[in-house]
Amino acid sequence: MLGAIEAGGTKFVLAVSDNNLEHVEKISIPTTTPEETFDKVFEFFDNYTLEAIGVGSFGPIDVNKNSTTYGYVTSTPKLAWQNVDFLGKLKERYDVPVSWTTDVNAAAYGELKKGAAVGNGSCLYLTVGTGIGGGAVINGEPLEGYGHPEMGHIPVRMHEDDTFDGACPYHGNCLEGLAAGPAIEKRYDKKAQYLEDREDVWKIEAYYLAQALMTYTLTLSPEKIILGGGVMKQTQLFPLIRDEFARLINGYVATPALEEYIVSPGLKDNAGITGCLLLAQKEL
Amino acid sequence: MLGAIEAGGTKFVLAVSDNNLEHVEKISIPTTTPEETFDKVFEFFDNYTLEAIGVGSFGPIDVNKNSTTYGYVTSTPKLAWQNVDFLGKLKERYDVPVSWTTDVNAAAYGELKKGAAVGNGSCLYLTVGTGIGGGAVINGEPLEGYGHPEMGHIPVRMHEDDTFDGACPYHGNCLEGLAAGPAIEKRYDKKAQYLEDREDVWKIEAYYLAQALMTYTLTLSPEKIILGGGVMKQTQLFPLIRDEFARLINGYVATPALEEYIVSPGLKDNAGITGCLLLAQKEL
Repeated sequence: MLGAIEAGGTKFVLAVSDNNLEHVEKISIPTTTPEETFDKVFEFFDNYTLEAIGVGSFGPIDVNKNSTTYGYVTSTPKLAWQNVDFLGKLKERYDVPVSWTTDVNAAAYGELKKGAAVGNGSCLYLTVGTGIGGGAVINGEPLEGYGHPEMGHIPVRMHEDDTFDGACPYHGNCLEGLAAGPAIEKRYDKKAQYLEDREDVWKIEAYYLAQALMTYTLTLSPEKIILGGGVMKQTQLFPLIRDEFARLINGYVATPALEEYIVSPGLKDNAGITGCLLLAQKEL
Repeated sequence: MLGAIEAGGTKFVLAVSDNNLEHVEKISIPTTTPEETFDKVFEFFDNYTLEAIGVGSFGPIDVNKNSTTYGYVTSTPKLAWQNVDFLGKLKERYDVPVSWTTDVNAAAYGELKKGAAVGNGSCLYLTVGTGIGGGAVINGEPLEGYGHPEMGHIPVRMHEDDTFDGACPYHGNCLEGLAAGPAIEKRYDKKAQYLEDREDVWKIEAYYLAQALMTYTLTLSPEKIILGGGVMKQTQLFPLIRDEFARLINGYVATPALEEYIVSPGLKDNAGITGCLLLAQKEL
């Protein structure tokens, strides 16, 4: 059987399935201390005979196999989880291969194999929620190098009507600092879902996201871009982003038709956990 | 034997070598009309029995195997070369496998296999000259997706002391529009090489390049970034770029030590043509 953990900052989704992903059982537990959380992970997985585990984790995490802290959660703002040997704890309990990458790389993998990017050779998955994170699959592999992508923190140009300073503790007005959920809330003193009718809000939001998608397109040239996360439940954003993307990139590079290129997750909120199961399957 | 073409906008470098790249013969011809240029290519290659050819071309080019114009040079500003079936012309003359990618992807491949990135699993190669172009190798393969990267055209934030409008016909003040050789020349009314002592010039240049390297790092997470091209002959730029990169990224992600991370080409001006030979070798 396959095990999977989509490790998020507020909850862990745990799943097990047969090796073909036909029968999936899934639970969700709150992310508390590492000790408590792992106890619940073990409690769940101990009922099964796992042959491989796939983990997609919040981060930053260490994915560098040459590093002494490979498998650790590293500089996360969630203090209790800093420098936790996530992979080590799992390996100690279960002597099986474990696939280890970011939550967004796992989601990109899920979407490529079973979601919106089926039939494509590459895709990019961007989540826009309490933070902004991006992952990708290139030539069938989750994108990693010295570390993993942190696409939410790229610098962007300010919208001319935006006077907000930005909310990123590291970079101020990077993409995440200007366009993640908390940035919207701070700028307007209201949560995104209460701003649905405010055209100006979504125009500015679309400007930042389109600018980022232009940068990712020019840097990575993915075959599909999938936008998930809480903020993207504001589906009025999609046409605004596509229009702004077309305006900014100005026909310079060929992309698929934008309705096919910039899309919602085919697996909805299951992209991440499905990707984790598929990454486990890949280890068999 | 292997054949290689580094196809640039002003010259073509042609090379042949044995299959182990031990003996390399190389010539350079001016890029004139496609007819004239290909005649010279054939004249050179016809002397050898080639088993594979590697091409790294200026672009944009069509690298999408599902496209009807795969193998074409597409929307280049060099009018005579627009919509030229580069790969088709070669295949018609030589019935051997041909590897087809961008000049900068070829240079990245060369640097990974025999240059500054030997021992790394991935690298990014950026040329800063009459234009700015970027290529990368990820998991041993030149980076391509729906198309190929066009990293020179990403949007960047303006330096607060810079009032130049930007020189890119597509995007005005994108990276290339602000930081390629012609942008420097237009901004100061002097070519880069006559501005060597002007601290303000290189401070602004380093700001733009560092910002771009931050974006590439956060998007791709390469193990090494190699900076080539005419503008980078101003080697005083390297420490300025590294300092600015550190300031901007603000410790958010781990990178190799910056002296090891942001470097000159190990193969100097031979990165591209060596990469083409190696890509030909890969086809054997």
